[in-house]
Amino acid sequence: MSNTVFVTRREHFNAAHKLWNPKWDAETNAKVFGKCANPNWHGHNYTLFVTVKGEPDADTGYCIDLKFLSDLIEERVLSLLDHKNLNIDVDFLQGKLTSAENVAIAIWHRLADAVKNEQRELYCVKLYETENNIVEYFG
Amino acid sequence: MSNTVFVTRREHFNAAHKLWNPKWDAETNAKVFGKCANPNWHGHNYTLFVTVKGEPDADTGYCIDLKFLSDLIEERVLSLLDHKNLNIDVDFLQGKLTSAENVAIAIWHRLADAVKNEQRELYCVKLYETENNIVEYFG
Amino acid sequence: MSNTVFVTRREHFNAAHKLWNPKWDAETNAKVFGKCANPNWHGHNYTLFVTVKGEPDADTGYCIDLKFLSDLIEERVLSLLDHKNLNIDVDFLQGKLTSAENVAIAIWHRLADAVKNEQRELYCVKLYETENNIVEYFG
Amino acid sequence: MSNTVFVTRREHFNAAHKLWNPKWDAETNAKVFGKCANPNWHGHNYTLFVTVKGEPDADTGYCIDLKFLSDLIEERVLSLLDHKNLNIDVDFLQGKLTSAENVAIAIWHRLADAVKNEQRELYCVKLYETENNIVEYFG
Amino acid sequence: MSNTVFVTRREHFNAAHKLWNPKWDAETNAKVFGKCANPNWHGHNYTLFVTVKGEPDADTGYCIDLKFLSDLIEERVLSLLDHKNLNIDVDFLQGKLTSAENVAIAIWHRLADAVKNEQRELYCVKLYETENNIVEYFG
Amino acid sequence: MSNTVFVTRREHFNAAHKLWNPKWDAETNAKVFGKCANPNWHGHNYTLFVTVKGEPDADTGYCIDLKFLSDLIEERVLSLLDHKNLNIDVDFLQGKLTSAENVAIAIWHRLADAVKNEQRELYCVKLYETENNIVEYFG
Repeated sequence: MSNTVFVTRREHFNAAHKLWNPKWDAETNAKVFGKCANPNWHGHNYTLFVTVKGEPDADTGYCIDLKFLSDLIEERVLSLLDHKNLNIDVDFLQGKLTSAENVAIAIWHRLADAVKNEQRELYCVKLYETENNIVEYFG
Repeated sequence: MSNTVFVTRREHFNAAHKLWNPKWDAETNAKVFGKCANPNWHGHNYTLFVTVKGEPDADTGYCIDLKFLSDLIEERVLSLLDHKNLNIDVDFLQGKLTSAENVAIAIWHRLADAVKNEQRELYCVKLYETENNIVEYFG
Repeated sequence: MSNTVFVTRREHFNAAHKLWNPKWDAETNAKVFGKCANPNWHGHNYTLFVTVKGEPDADTGYCIDLKFLSDLIEERVLSLLDHKNLNIDVDFLQGKLTSAENVAIAIWHRLADAVKNEQRELYCVKLYETENNIVEYFG
Repeated sequence: MSNTVFVTRREHFNAAHKLWNPKWDAETNAKVFGKCANPNWHGHNYTLFVTVKGEPDADTGYCIDLKFLSDLIEERVLSLLDHKNLNIDVDFLQGKLTSAENVAIAIWHRLADAVKNEQRELYCVKLYETENNIVEYFG
Repeated sequence: MSNTVFVTRREHFNAAHKLWNPKWDAETNAKVFGKCANPNWHGHNYTLFVTVKGEPDADTGYCIDLKFLSDLIEERVLSLLDHKNLNIDVDFLQGKLTSAENVAIAIWHRLADAVKNEQRELYCVKLYETENNIVEYFG
Repeated sequence: MSNTVFVTRREHFNAAHKLWNPKWDAETNAKVFGKCANPNWHGHNYTLFVTVKGEPDADTGYCIDLKFLSDLIEERVLSLLDHKNLNIDVDFLQGKLTSAENVAIAIWHRLADAVKNEQRELYCVKLYETENNIVEYFG
């Protein structure tokens, strides 16, 4: 039996995006992505769950201080995505299709090194684009 | 004691928008609307509750057939707002600031006449821009 | 300024039902009620909100003891509806179409007298048939 | 037809409390309040909905700037209640039974004057003690 | 580090059922299954989460097009379960006890081959019978 | 392909606690734990998900009877935690920092042996301190 626990912080951001492959013309984008390819954008209230794996510290009982984790997500993710256009405004998404899959993977790479120390590591990034459409990435 | 009941249908749409008053320059818009004035848009998963007031029909037990109400909302509201840019793509929002207040009022006007008959009338349009920001309009 | 407050208790019950008017043949029922007329029944996790209006008692701070209200709902409503067939098993729904409208009105009549005293009265019965279909009755 | 809209902001606070009438002995408190009278306290994640009634401003589309309302709630309510003991730590609850009814009424009085101007007024304070136990106060 | 992501689609269906072992008499069924053995049925709003494991496509950013997955679930699962009696109306549940466990396993077998291609495979079927009772099956 | 399923029961308890390391003075506790170190306590509506892994029984379709599991959680966990002070009132938390991590691990140890038989075993204890702060422990 181990002491490994998985600690999750939920956060939110609101953003515009569209699914649009620049290699294709408008007609093909519309055919492949349907209404998600609306040229004038649409948007979502994204919900983000970040899970860290580690052992509780003897002195604090914390695997990770969730205030620290929340601040880290704010600094490295939310401040760059919230009330932004994912296709235009976000350096770390440049050149990527802004599917929930790709956004979740990109968020992982924004957080993995900053979370990791000898006691803990990033375990999962879970992203709700809507309550019906959910992506998880485990690195 | 009356037989009046209030029947509500919940629907969803995802859209982009920004808060932007064209009478003001960018600096003033940013000052008044904060991050909601991001020029490149942001977006939301809007949740819409439409409430109809009336009496249950003796033969159906319905105040209003919620399949009919849902189809009506689809035809007159969702098909025009879902996966759209509220500032650009929506005829009935042209020239309006797309605050949740104004969008809720505009949705009311799209539905009131179509819902009304001798048995029932539109009672409330409730619009969640996020789970934290909610507007209700009663006509 | 008054001291009137509105206190709500949420409860749940799971039940089978169908929408079926015995005056009509199967074809007409199917046409009017669609899939809700499936002869072999369907069912729901109903969520019930019961709201009482009154003034907080000086000694308890309660408008109504929610443990008392919960027990009352259990005794007079849930014990008769939970894991039942609304069309067959429930005396107080006999002869009624089991639309959410009619079930909400019937629940009101099961509770109004039992709740009422000089300090408080039943204010609203709100019934969720699903998260999308909601009925409120105010007496 | 009016332009009156109802705008709601949702907030959260976590607090300890107990239901305890100092006029009564421990046995009576336990009998009246059940487990809510545990002398060593219990606690809740309270969810607070504050609703303001008014007309949208022509220049902003806002009935009230929800950032302003959120800051006001933070300053006048949450900073005093969050991660506090409602019976001990809160000046404006001193001498009151900390039932959800009384807490909701007290929150109303913390906000009503600060919200009111010629354009708008406080309409409702809704407090969830749990998802099952809810109180509304309308002044 | 891999590109494997897990994509989930949430869906709903409403159905009647009862827990009833035909090898046992009514008394034994009532003893084992309690109120779930009500002979006249009860029902639920089932919530279904279907998770697919795969790698995002370079051209679409999709592990799986969730519109395609949703249509597949509609065709192979929901059209057969929604507004049905799970014990009577559903070919692929014939002869099975309609516990949430068995329904989840049966849904898996309806979807696994249809989801699988060289890029992706079915990973999990998660079924909520109520918000309190949940089953997951991973094949 | 196996018959292994994962069955989860959701439960709730409301409790007071504080994060406080008795080896440290008040100032250090305040610095490390922030507002969670309020000496007069705060509290939460905890939500608990208990997951059991096993195979469905041929006669019942159950991996575990959720009524049995719910009663077990009530007897071994909720009756000891609900409406209690986690730091003072709970024998099995004595001497522990009542972080969500440590509470989840302690709940695991209250349940693991009682759940286990030849057919099933405890798989996960998931504890929501708030909707934003979540811990999972897998033994």
